[in-house]
Amino acid sequence: MSFLRILCFFSLFSITFSHETLNGHVLPRPLIVEYPENTIETHWKEVEEEVKLQCTSWRFTVEANNLSPWKTVPGECVEYVKDYMMGRGYRIDLERVSKEAAAFAKTVELAGDGKDAWVFDIDETLLSNLPYYQDHAYGMEIFDPIEFDRWIEKANAPAIESSLKLYEEVLELGFKVFLLTGRSEKHMNITVENLNNAGFRNWDKLILRSTDDQGKLAIIYKSQKRSEMIKEGYRIHGNSGDQWSDLLGFAMSNRSFKVPNPMYYIP
Amino acid sequence: MSFLRILCFFSLFSITFSHETLNGHVLPRPLIVEYPENTIETHWKEVEEEVKLQCTSWRFTVEANNLSPWKTVPGECVEYVKDYMMGRGYRIDLERVSKEAAAFAKTVELAGDGKDAWVFDIDETLLSNLPYYQDHAYGMEIFDPIEFDRWIEKANAPAIESSLKLYEEVLELGFKVFLLTGRSEKHMNITVENLNNAGFRNWDKLILRSTDDQGKLAIIYKSQKRSEMIKEGYRIHGNSGDQWSDLLGFAMSNRSFKVPNPMYYIP
Repeated sequence: MSFLRILCFFSLFSITFSHETLNGHVLPRPLIVEYPENTIETHWKEVEEEVKLQCTSWRFTVEANNLSPWKTVPGECVEYVKDYMMGRGYRIDLERVSKEAAAFAKTVELAGDGKDAWVFDIDETLLSNLPYYQDHAYGMEIFDPIEFDRWIEKANAPAIESSLKLYEEVLELGFKVFLLTGRSEKHMNITVENLNNAGFRNWDKLILRSTDDQGKLAIIYKSQKRSEMIKEGYRIHGNSGDQWSDLLGFAMSNRSFKVPNPMYYIP
Repeated sequence: MSFLRILCFFSLFSITFSHETLNGHVLPRPLIVEYPENTIETHWKEVEEEVKLQCTSWRFTVEANNLSPWKTVPGECVEYVKDYMMGRGYRIDLERVSKEAAAFAKTVELAGDGKDAWVFDIDETLLSNLPYYQDHAYGMEIFDPIEFDRWIEKANAPAIESSLKLYEEVLELGFKVFLLTGRSEKHMNITVENLNNAGFRNWDKLILRSTDDQGKLAIIYKSQKRSEMIKEGYRIHGNSGDQWSDLLGFAMSNRSFKVPNPMYYIP
C-alpha cells in the first residue's frame, strides 16, 4: 500500500502547485482534474501494468504448452514470477488444480482389483524446490545440475500442501499410487527420506531414472514407464505433473492435471 | 483513469480532515500516511484485486485443461472475461500463440512430397464469434445451438487476425492445410463463404461433421479424422485449436497450439 501513499501525496502536491500557477491564466488552462494522469507515478503504474499483462501472457503460453522449449524465465518477468510464486497466485492455482483432480478422482468407478492407478511426478508436484529457486533467481539462472543435486541431497524440500491433501484423498479412495520422477536412482534413499519427512506414505512404486534411462527425453522416459504399468494391467486414471512432459507422449492417463510451474521447463 | 482522479481527491479530503482532528490529540494518534488504506475506495480496490486473482486462476485452470467439463463462465468472472476478451489481454495471448506456432513451423523440415500437414480448427481459432458472445454474456449463458446457427448462417464472423497471419505463413512454408471443424456439413457453403470473406484461401480440405459424426464427442470425431489423414500418408506437424478436444485424443500432431478461449468448453 506504500505506493498508494506516495501517489496520493504526490497528487496532493501537484494539485496545490496547479492552484498557484492557475492564478496567472484565464483561458486556455489545464483542468486540475486531469493533472494526476501526467505524473511520473501514473506513468510508472502504467509500465507496471504492461509488464504484468505481458508476463501473464507469457505464463499462459507456458501453462498451455504453447512455448517452444525455453531455458530460463525472461529477465523482464523475473519480478513477476517471484511475486506469483511467493504470493497468493501460486497457492490459489495449486489449490484449484488439486481440487479439480480430487473431484475427478471421486467420479472414477474403481474395479476393486487393485489395478486403478494414479501417477504423480515429484519435484514441483509433490515436493517444492521453491527454497532452492529463491536462491537462484526464480528460474532466471541457467539450471545448474550440480548445485541442484546438493539441494536434493539435503532431503529438505517441503510438501506442496494441496498436493499432499490430494495424494491422501487418492489413496483413501483406493487408487494405487505411482511416483514417477526424473530424479536419478542414485537419489533413491534421499528421495524416500524427503518424501517421508514431508508426510508422503504408502505409495505403491517409486520409479527413478536408471542408468538405461539417462539421456532420454523426460517425455519418452515417462511414457515408457507408464506403458510398462499398462502392460502390467494397470489403468492410469489420473496423472499429476508440473511439466507437460509428465503428461503427454504415449500411454497417457485418462485425465491429466497440470500443476503450475513458471520457473523451468523439462522437455 | 477516472478512478485515480477520484481516489486522489478522496485522499486529499481525508488528509485535510485528519489534520484538523489531530490538533485535539497528543498520543496515541493515527499516522496520517496510513489514512488512505482505510477508505472505501481502497477496500473496493482490494475486492477488485481479489476477483482478478481468482478469475485469472480460473482462466489458467481452463487453459491448462485442468477443469472438469464446464457449462458456463462462473458469474463472478463474467466482467473479468469481458475485460479480457475486449481488452489487450486476449489480443496479446492470440498474437503470442501464433508467433510460437510460426516459429515452430519454420523449424520443420518439409519432405517436399506434399504430405506435411497443419490442422486448424475454425471457430475461435480462425474465425471469431466474439460478436455473437458479446450479445450472450461472454459465455455466462447456457449455449443455445439454434441462436448460434442463426449467427453462423450470416457468414459474418471476422478473422482472428493473428491466426490469419499464421495460416498464410504456414501455407507459404509449403504445408498442406486441413480445416477440421465441429460445424455440421449442412453449413459447408456458408462456412466457405465466411472463410473467404475473412481472407482465408487455399486450404487443402475442409472437414465438417457428417451425419455419421453427429453425437460423437469432439475429441473422438477429431481424432478419427486426423487418424484418416495419417492413414492417407500425411504427417501432422502442427495443430491449432481453442479447445483441448481439438488437440488431444489419438493421432495427435507433433506440436499443438492452444488458442485462448475462456468463453466455452467443448468435450
